[in-house]
Amino acid sequence: MAEARKILLPADEFPKTWYNIVPDIAKTGKKLAEPKDSGRLNRMKEYVAPSLLAQEKSGAIEVPIPDEVRIHLIRTGRPTPLQHAVRLESHLKTPAKIYYKREDIGYSTDSKLTTAVAQAYYVINDGFEKIVGGGGARWGTSLSIAATRIGLKCDFIMPQSYLTLKEPHRILMEVNKTNVFGSPSDLTEVGRKVKESKKYETGNISLAMSEAVERAMEEKKSAFSFGYLFNFVMLHQTLSGVEAKRQFEMIDRYPDVVICPIDDFGFALPFVADKLAGKKPETRFIVTQSKYVPVLTEGKLDYDHADYAELTPLYRFHTLGRSFDPPMIHAGEMRYHGVPPILSHLVEAGIVEVRTYAQTECFEASWEWCRQQGVIPSHETQYVIKAVIDEAVKAKEEGKEEVIVFNNAGHTMLESSGYLELIVDKKLKLP
Amino acid sequence: MAEARKILLPADEFPKTWYNIVPDIAKTGKKLAEPKDSGRLNRMKEYVAPSLLAQEKSGAIEVPIPDEVRIHLIRTGRPTPLQHAVRLESHLKTPAKIYYKREDIGYSTDSKLTTAVAQAYYVINDGFEKIVGGGGARWGTSLSIAATRIGLKCDFIMPQSYLTLKEPHRILMEVNKTNVFGSPSDLTEVGRKVKESKKYETGNISLAMSEAVERAMEEKKSAFSFGYLFNFVMLHQTLSGVEAKRQFEMIDRYPDVVICPIDDFGFALPFVADKLAGKKPETRFIVTQSKYVPVLTEGKLDYDHADYAELTPLYRFHTLGRSFDPPMIHAGEMRYHGVPPILSHLVEAGIVEVRTYAQTECFEASWEWCRQQGVIPSHETQYVIKAVIDEAVKAKEEGKEEVIVFNNAGHTMLESSGYLELIVDKKLKLP
Repeated sequence: MAEARKILLPADEFPKTWYNIVPDIAKTGKKLAEPKDSGRLNRMKEYVAPSLLAQEKSGAIEVPIPDEVRIHLIRTGRPTPLQHAVRLESHLKTPAKIYYKREDIGYSTDSKLTTAVAQAYYVINDGFEKIVGGGGARWGTSLSIAATRIGLKCDFIMPQSYLTLKEPHRILMEVNKTNVFGSPSDLTEVGRKVKESKKYETGNISLAMSEAVERAMEEKKSAFSFGYLFNFVMLHQTLSGVEAKRQFEMIDRYPDVVICPIDDFGFALPFVADKLAGKKPETRFIVTQSKYVPVLTEGKLDYDHADYAELTPLYRFHTLGRSFDPPMIHAGEMRYHGVPPILSHLVEAGIVEVRTYAQTECFEASWEWCRQQGVIPSHETQYVIKAVIDEAVKAKEEGKEEVIVFNNAGHTMLESSGYLELIVDKKLKLP
Repeated sequence: MAEARKILLPADEFPKTWYNIVPDIAKTGKKLAEPKDSGRLNRMKEYVAPSLLAQEKSGAIEVPIPDEVRIHLIRTGRPTPLQHAVRLESHLKTPAKIYYKREDIGYSTDSKLTTAVAQAYYVINDGFEKIVGGGGARWGTSLSIAATRIGLKCDFIMPQSYLTLKEPHRILMEVNKTNVFGSPSDLTEVGRKVKESKKYETGNISLAMSEAVERAMEEKKSAFSFGYLFNFVMLHQTLSGVEAKRQFEMIDRYPDVVICPIDDFGFALPFVADKLAGKKPETRFIVTQSKYVPVLTEGKLDYDHADYAELTPLYRFHTLGRSFDPPMIHAGEMRYHGVPPILSHLVEAGIVEVRTYAQTECFEASWEWCRQQGVIPSHETQYVIKAVIDEAVKAKEEGKEEVIVFNNAGHTMLESSGYLELIVDKKLKLP
């Protein structure tokens, strides 16, 4: 029988540490820019778990993963398989070898669940009773799972339009006893003001984030939680990359190209470590963004707030401006004005290349992926798959047996509206 | 670190044979009733792959699984883990040990995909170019995956109302290049007649099946395929049971109770084999049905046609009558007038007990399951989970450390309408 091309890491080899790139960043020739605005930095202690703030600026390269976090993650399906996409390769007639990490097993997205479980763990350990999140639908679903498993109450604020557009996610959050609110909401001063102004009626991620921060600040024993931007989020999300590196060792291979969407670059960091250390200088890194939110190409690399209402400190990253109102693309988690400071730094340092795509071409690439590999990728991962196919076709033209890897982070089973517009209605509002 | 309670069968231990219960059925004291009506039986050769007809009446107890089928199934994620539901056990404070086979990894349902891949394999090997299916949405999605992987064209006919109620399934079938039609349709004589009569406007499974049979009969090189009722379907679906038995051996346990929904009893058969052989006389088997389709308790055990329009031969099974029009319950695949002849026989012989449930109580049981185990079960599996919880609570009352197992066959990520009615709209048409 032919080989199954599924590389399984046994649960007893579950990584014991996350990889922290922050101290290693200096190897690019420049240290990571510190956040500014000490007033706002100090106030973070009121609404962010101290353990997470400590991780945010940790100087350790290997950060231990608490046993309880490891057990919860194993129970939710980790470690996930590294899979060889043989059918897509033969369909494309490419000499490239395409590997993907299957981070789409759960009903949220494993890469988001990874940091949600870790954050919930620190939040409850630091004495909080509720976790308050703001952001996209898949982040909310992940947080609701983490909260219910760890034993925290949970409030989640997401853009108003997602209440209907991503309703199945909302239902699952409610099954997990999370209270879901649409932003702009009446819950917060920020929300009420924006509602009055009639701006941002459909809501957006940075506004939802402001509301979540305000709510967590005002409620005693509530901690804010965000699935993007912060160093500790990327730290937790290196887990799938640490696993993938070990899985590549098991088959004696190493990737030539690592491809990620802007909201899931943690996966690439353990491979970036080898490049920065001079061990693998030739590895290429590609990040994909939407042409409707071209933050890495048209954004300004400067200090900005993470949230619309300027409740958070100033961080240095590529930004379209915190009051940028992104159009309604289907990749909800990518509707945000900035990218994580770590990613900005790596793009600035020339370590990471950027690819920009429209929606339709990404849908088409992902359908081929679905037909060949049997997985319906998340909207965000569709951008990566478009880049993977482009790279594999280029490898064919150049006759290169390049090893490509990506993180198949999540599925769209709970978000069929994009497919509806494109397949059933034969029109897509934004191509 | 505590044990992960996930029992993985390595891909190289993938079973080499399915278990065929048909010859073993005689051990109940009575042979399985043969189908009748030789005219219709003969006509089946026109629209059913000869290899499948041969399997339908095979006298072999172990039927070899072709290598190509095994490779396709491994690539779609098999073998699936057997998981220990430790969180649910501690939530219920039961001494019972609850195990479940995770047949919900793919975007359809692994148990349906198992037979879809096998059927598609035989259909193309026997010289057909198209596979025509009729039935529920999850069956259609499974068939569309199998067809696209094996290289067959595919038409699928499902109840008219499912086009909107289960639209995400329809979209995925279309991504897989399957042509989807609502029944009653204009494609067939049966469909046109029923449309004229204004009966069954929302459609039902046995009518969709008639239409699929008619279309496969009329089109050259088209083969009919059905995910239920036939012996060969149950044969293929024993795969997860064969795997689970091996997984129980790995942890030196054996189930005391095996619980299945009416549309997925193949899982139980390898365990039934041990009971019939006198090796495990105490094992109990439970099957769950809907109170709105009480086929095993209120149906007549007699000969009936598998389809509404009487195109198929007569089979002996519990039936509510082929023109029974089931109400719109959410477990779509359970909206059918009959059960497989093998299951009917086992119920008649007293081997299998029946439990009947309403919808709301099953939704509530499944929410607990979701919160404790992180899986949103299929509507059909919800009935099983209700029975599992009932049994676990009974075991607690009786102080018994009973081992319970079930097949977690599929998820509801593509079918959130039931949750919508119950959680969001706070009303369910049929409780």
